[in-house]
Amino acid sequence: MRPSRRAPDELRPVTLERGVVKYAEGSCLVKFGDTHVLVTATLEDRLPPWLKGQGRGWVTAEYGMLPRATSERTRREASAGKQSGRTVEIQRLIGRSLRTIVDLEALGERQITVDCDVLQADGGTRTASITGAWVALADCINWMKARNMIKAKVLRDNVAAISCGIYNGTPVLDLDYAEDSEAQTDANFVLTGDGRIIEVQGTAEREPFTQDEFLALMALAQKGIARLVDLQKLAVA
Amino acid sequence: MRPSRRAPDELRPVTLERGVVKYAEGSCLVKFGDTHVLVTATLEDRLPPWLKGQGRGWVTAEYGMLPRATSERTRREASAGKQSGRTVEIQRLIGRSLRTIVDLEALGERQITVDCDVLQADGGTRTASITGAWVALADCINWMKARNMIKAKVLRDNVAAISCGIYNGTPVLDLDYAEDSEAQTDANFVLTGDGRIIEVQGTAEREPFTQDEFLALMALAQKGIARLVDLQKLAVA
Amino acid sequence: MRPSRRAPDELRPVTLERGVVKYAEGSCLVKFGDTHVLVTATLEDRLPPWLKGQGRGWVTAEYGMLPRATSERTRREASAGKQSGRTVEIQRLIGRSLRTIVDLEALGERQITVDCDVLQADGGTRTASITGAWVALADCINWMKARNMIKAKVLRDNVAAISCGIYNGTPVLDLDYAEDSEAQTDANFVLTGDGRIIEVQGTAEREPFTQDEFLALMALAQKGIARLVDLQKLAVA
Amino acid sequence: MRPSRRAPDELRPVTLERGVVKYAEGSCLVKFGDTHVLVTATLEDRLPPWLKGQGRGWVTAEYGMLPRATSERTRREASAGKQSGRTVEIQRLIGRSLRTIVDLEALGERQITVDCDVLQADGGTRTASITGAWVALADCINWMKARNMIKAKVLRDNVAAISCGIYNGTPVLDLDYAEDSEAQTDANFVLTGDGRIIEVQGTAEREPFTQDEFLALMALAQKGIARLVDLQKLAVA
Amino acid sequence: MRPSRRAPDELRPVTLERGVVKYAEGSCLVKFGDTHVLVTATLEDRLPPWLKGQGRGWVTAEYGMLPRATSERTRREASAGKQSGRTVEIQRLIGRSLRTIVDLEALGERQITVDCDVLQADGGTRTASITGAWVALADCINWMKARNMIKAKVLRDNVAAISCGIYNGTPVLDLDYAEDSEAQTDANFVLTGDGRIIEVQGTAEREPFTQDEFLALMALAQKGIARLVDLQKLAVA
Amino acid sequence: MRPSRRAPDELRPVTLERGVVKYAEGSCLVKFGDTHVLVTATLEDRLPPWLKGQGRGWVTAEYGMLPRATSERTRREASAGKQSGRTVEIQRLIGRSLRTIVDLEALGERQITVDCDVLQADGGTRTASITGAWVALADCINWMKARNMIKAKVLRDNVAAISCGIYNGTPVLDLDYAEDSEAQTDANFVLTGDGRIIEVQGTAEREPFTQDEFLALMALAQKGIARLVDLQKLAVA
Repeated sequence: MRPSRRAPDELRPVTLERGVVKYAEGSCLVKFGDTHVLVTATLEDRLPPWLKGQGRGWVTAEYGMLPRATSERTRREASAGKQSGRTVEIQRLIGRSLRTIVDLEALGERQITVDCDVLQADGGTRTASITGAWVALADCINWMKARNMIKAKVLRDNVAAISCGIYNGTPVLDLDYAEDSEAQTDANFVLTGDGRIIEVQGTAEREPFTQDEFLALMALAQKGIARLVDLQKLAVA
Repeated sequence: MRPSRRAPDELRPVTLERGVVKYAEGSCLVKFGDTHVLVTATLEDRLPPWLKGQGRGWVTAEYGMLPRATSERTRREASAGKQSGRTVEIQRLIGRSLRTIVDLEALGERQITVDCDVLQADGGTRTASITGAWVALADCINWMKARNMIKAKVLRDNVAAISCGIYNGTPVLDLDYAEDSEAQTDANFVLTGDGRIIEVQGTAEREPFTQDEFLALMALAQKGIARLVDLQKLAVA
Repeated sequence: MRPSRRAPDELRPVTLERGVVKYAEGSCLVKFGDTHVLVTATLEDRLPPWLKGQGRGWVTAEYGMLPRATSERTRREASAGKQSGRTVEIQRLIGRSLRTIVDLEALGERQITVDCDVLQADGGTRTASITGAWVALADCINWMKARNMIKAKVLRDNVAAISCGIYNGTPVLDLDYAEDSEAQTDANFVLTGDGRIIEVQGTAEREPFTQDEFLALMALAQKGIARLVDLQKLAVA
Repeated sequence: MRPSRRAPDELRPVTLERGVVKYAEGSCLVKFGDTHVLVTATLEDRLPPWLKGQGRGWVTAEYGMLPRATSERTRREASAGKQSGRTVEIQRLIGRSLRTIVDLEALGERQITVDCDVLQADGGTRTASITGAWVALADCINWMKARNMIKAKVLRDNVAAISCGIYNGTPVLDLDYAEDSEAQTDANFVLTGDGRIIEVQGTAEREPFTQDEFLALMALAQKGIARLVDLQKLAVA
Repeated sequence: MRPSRRAPDELRPVTLERGVVKYAEGSCLVKFGDTHVLVTATLEDRLPPWLKGQGRGWVTAEYGMLPRATSERTRREASAGKQSGRTVEIQRLIGRSLRTIVDLEALGERQITVDCDVLQADGGTRTASITGAWVALADCINWMKARNMIKAKVLRDNVAAISCGIYNGTPVLDLDYAEDSEAQTDANFVLTGDGRIIEVQGTAEREPFTQDEFLALMALAQKGIARLVDLQKLAVA
Repeated sequence: MRPSRRAPDELRPVTLERGVVKYAEGSCLVKFGDTHVLVTATLEDRLPPWLKGQGRGWVTAEYGMLPRATSERTRREASAGKQSGRTVEIQRLIGRSLRTIVDLEALGERQITVDCDVLQADGGTRTASITGAWVALADCINWMKARNMIKAKVLRDNVAAISCGIYNGTPVLDLDYAEDSEAQTDANFVLTGDGRIIEVQGTAEREPFTQDEFLALMALAQKGIARLVDLQKLAVA
C-alpha cells in the first residue's frame, strides 16, 4: 500500500494553470499533488555569444526553490552565493529536454528562457517542471505566432516527464516525497508525445537493480506520460 | 488623474491570504493590486552565533524576486552569485521593522526567518512584504502558542508599510510601477498599529522636496496604514 | 548631559581640508570630531554601459572603512570577498545624494567616481562622507572648468548631511558613537543648501517614535546642515 | 564503419596502472584509448558534519580536467572561481556509483575521497574515471586491511562504466570524441560486477530514441562492462 | 641624473609618525616622499585554528590601496570581490618579514594583525609598509608591556626594507614611480637592524642582470636600510 | 649528510619528456626526482585586452597542483572557489621568467599559455615548472616555425630555475621536501642560459642570513642551472 493510497500506476492530481504571471510571454502554474511549480517563459532578442549569426535560436532553463518550499527551510541560493549541484543538474536537464522538441531554426535568432520556481515541494519537482514548462513554452510560441514573428512550426512534439521507483518491492508511478525517501530505486523519464525517449536517468538508491525492474519502471512511465500529454493538450486547447 | 484612476488617498485592492504553504509555521500571500508576494515564517531552534546564551531570540528576513516577476526578465541572483544592493537594502529593512514590534525575550532562544518572495511586481514590493510579513509572523507565533512554547505576549503591536509620492505635483498613496517611475519624490513609511514611526525613508528622485511636501506624504501614509492594520486584524481574526 | 558635554544642537568640530591626495581631480579630508574620512573625486572618460550615447554624465560613489578605523578590528572587505550590506547601503546613499544636485547634461558624457574611505570612525561616517564629498566634487568640477571642459553650471546647489537622534529622551544633533549606540532613535538627513530634503532616513532603534519627535529631529538637522553648508562655502572660497 | 575502425561492440584498448602516485593510499592511471585519467583515493579520519557519530563512513569524489586535456584549451576552473555544471554532474555521478558498492558501516567512521583528474580527453572521461576509481578504491581498502583498520568486507562488488551510442544508425560501444560529437544518442551505464544497474543516463542529442534502441545500447553495455570488470580483477590480482 | 635629482644613494625624505589612529594598539603613518601608508597593529586574543594550543602567537599582515592612491583610479578590491595577485604577494611578504624578528613564544597565544593601507602611492609601497609596520608593531608590544601582558623580549631586532634598481645604467636607491617604471631591474631588500637578510626579491624587468649588478644593488640597500633603522629608533625613542 | 644522500651540489635525477599530451602545441613532463610536473604550451590567436593592436604577443602561465600530489590531500582550488596566494605567486613568477627570454614582437599578436600541473610534489615544484616550461615553449615555437607563422628568432635564450638552501648549516642544491621543511633559508634562482639573473627570491625561514651565505647559494645555483640548461638543449635537439 502506498502512503498516499494511490494505485501503483496512479498519478497524483495534476493541474496546469496558464497565464498566471501577467508580464511573461508564457506561464504555467503546474501542480502534481502538493508539488507546485511556477513556470514562466521569457522571449528575448539576444543569444548566447557562441550562437550568434548562425540562424538558430536557443531555449534554456533555470530552476530554483523558495527556501520554505521544503519541510525544513533550505538556505537561499542567492544568499549562499551559488547554485547547488542539484540545482545545476536539474536546470540542465530541463533545458536539454525542451530543446529536443524545438525546431531552433524555425525559432529564429532569439532565446527563450524558461524559469521553474518551486513554491512547494513534495517530490517530483523536476518532472513537474518539465511538464509545466512545455505549456509555458507553447504559450510563448503562440504569443510569437500572434505577432507574425515565426512562420514554420516551432514545436515538433510534446514533452513531459515523470518519476517512477521501486517502493516496498513494487514498481510505482509518480513518487511523492514520502515514497521517494524510502524507495530502493528512482528513475526519471522524459518522453515525447509519441512515446519516444528524450532522457532516462535511473539511480540505485541502495541496491543495484535488474534490467527487468528497469523495464517495469519504463512501462509505468509510458503510461503516466501519455496521461500528462493529454492534460497538456487540454490545457492549451 | 492617476494612471490607475484611483483617488490620491486610495490604496490598491489589498488581500492577505493565510496558510498558503503547507510546511511553514506561518505564511501569507499578500497582494497590493498586481504586486504579489509570497511570505513564509520559519521557526528554527538556532540563533546567530553572536546572540547565543543571552536569553533572547531573533527575527530576520530575506527577500527575493522571481526572474520574471518584472516586465523585463531580471537576472536570477542565485545564478549571478550575489544579491543586489537593492535586495540587501530591502531585506534589512524588513528585518528591522519586524524586530521593533517583537519582544525578543518573550520569544526565547529561537530564530524566526521571514522569506518574502515576489511572484509579480508592480511597485511597492517592500511595503507589501512588510505588511504580509506581519501576518505570517503572527501565525507563526500562534503556532508556537498552540504548542505551549511561549508564555508572555511576543507581538507588541502590528506593523505595516506603504509608499507615498508626489505624482504630477499631487501627493498620492500607494504608488504602482507606472506612478513610481514618474514620481518626483518617493517615500516609504513603516508604522505601528498605533501610528508611531518605525522607519521612514524619503528620497528625492529628481528635485529635492520641502518639509511641507514631506508632511503631506506622512499624513497620507498614516491614513493608508490604518487601513492596512484593519485588514491585518481581519485576516488573523 | 551628552557624553561629549555638547549642547543638544551643537555639532562636533568640523574641518574640511582640500587637496590632500596629489593625483585626484578633487579631494577632501573631512573630520567630524574623531570621525575622519578621506574623500577623492575621480574624473573618467567612460560611462556605465546603460548610459552611453545619451548626452549625459554620471556621478557614483564607493565607500570603505579601513579595518582598524573602529574600536574592534573589522574584517577587510577585500579579503572577505564582498562588501557588507551596510557598505552597499551607504555608497548608494552617497551617490544618490550627489546626483540630485548635479546637472548631468552639463557634465557631459563623463563619470565622476567619489571614493569615501573612513580612516577613523566615531559615528556619523555616512554624513561626514556626503558633506566632504561635496567639497571634493566641487574641486573636481573646478578642475574641469579650468580646462574648459564644461560650459554650463554643473553644481546646482550644495548638499550636506547630518544625523540626529533621541538620546536620554532629548533630541540631539550629530551623534557620536557613544550616543549612537545608546540612542532610542536615529535619523539621517541629507539636505540642499537651500534647506530642501534630498533624503531622510529615520529608524526606531528600540521604541517607535512619534511624528512630533521626528519633526524635532528635522528642525535640528536644518540648523546643523546650514552650518555645514557655510563651512563648505568657506572651504572652496 | 566507425572512425576508429573498431567493431560496434569493441572497446578501445584499456589499461589500468596501479600505484602511480607515491603518497596516495590507492591510485590508478586509467586509459581508454587516448582518454587518460589519473585517479587517487585518499583516506582521511574525518567525515562530513551531517554524518558524524552514526557509525558509518563516506566515499566521495571530485573530478577535474587539466586545461589542455582537450583539443582547444579549456579555462582552468580554479582560475574561473567555480566548477562548471558538467564537472559537478560528473563528480556526483562518480561518488554515487562508488557508494552503492561500498559497505559504509564496515568502512567505519572515515572518509575516502577519490580524485579523478583527466590528463587527456578523447571521450568517455566519466566512464573511464569510474572504472579506474574502483581500482584505486580497492587498493585503498587493501592498504587499510594491511593495517588491520577494517574487519568486515568493505567492497561488496565491482563497479565499472561505459558509454554507448547510436552512430550513423548503428548502436556502438565506448564512444570516442569523434563518435560522441556525431552520435544521435548517448547513454552512460554504470553496472556492478554481476551485471545489475547502478546508474543509467540516456540522452537524445538530437532525435528522441525508441525503447528498442535503448535496449540495444544496454546489451552492448552489459558486454563491455563484463570485459572491464575482468580487467579490474586482473589489475588488483 | 635621477628625475627627482637625488644622488644615487639618496633616500627620499622619510617620516614615521606614531599614534595616528586612536583605537589601534600601535599605528604609524609612514611617508617615503609622496608614498604615504597608514599602518595599524591590532592585538587580538585569537589565533588561526592550526596554531591553537602550541604556546605560540602569530603576526600577520594585510595590505590595501585606496582606489585613488594612484595616478589612474584602480578598481576597489572589495567591490571586485577579490584581492589581486599583487596584493596577495605583498601582504605575504610583509607578514613573513615581521615574523622573522618576533619571538612568537614570548608573544604568547595572541595574534597581531598589521594593516598597511596606501593613501598615496609613488613607488615603494611595500618597502614603506614594512618599515612603518615595525614602528606600529613596536608600539603595540609596548602597549602590552605597559599592561604586563608579556615578560620576555618579543622584538628580537629591527626590520626595514628598501627597493633598489638600475636606472639608466646606474644603480640607485629607493625608486620612486617615475624611476620604477623605467628601471631595467628592480630589487626589494628586507634586512634586519644588524644588516642580515630576511628577504631578497630581484626581478629583471627587461634584460637579465649580472651577479655584479645585483651586488651593487645590495650594497646600496645595506646603506639605505641602516638609515631607515636609525629613523625607526628615533621614532620609538 | 642530506636525507637523500646527495652531495651538497648534486641535483636530483632530472628528466624532460616531450610530446606527452597529443593536443598541445608543446608539452613536457618534467621530473626532478619525485617531483613530477606536466607542462603544456597552448597557442591562441587572442590577446589580453590591454595588449591589442600593439604588434606584440604575450606569454602567460597558470599553475595548479592535483589534490593528492602532496603527502596530505590538499583542497582542490576549483572546489574552494579560488586560487591560493601561493598558487598566484608561483604562476606570476613562471610567466615573468618566460617573458624575459621571449621576443614578444617576433612572436606576433598571439598568446602562448603555459599550464604547469603538479602530479606529484616533493619540493621544488616552481623550479621544475620553469625548467620544463622552457621545453614546452620551445616546442610550441618550433610548431609555429614549421607552419611559417614566425620569421625572426623568438626565443632569445634558455631559462631554468633551481632552489638552494642552508640545511644543517651547509648550503645545498635542489632541496627536496624533507630538506625544504628543515632548511633555515630557502632561495629560488631563475637564470638564463648565459648565467644572468632573471629572478632571485631568498627568504629566511627562521634566522636571517648573511650576504656571504647568500653568495654561496648563488654559486650553487649557477652550477645547477648550467646542468639543467644542458639537459634542455639535449631534450630539444
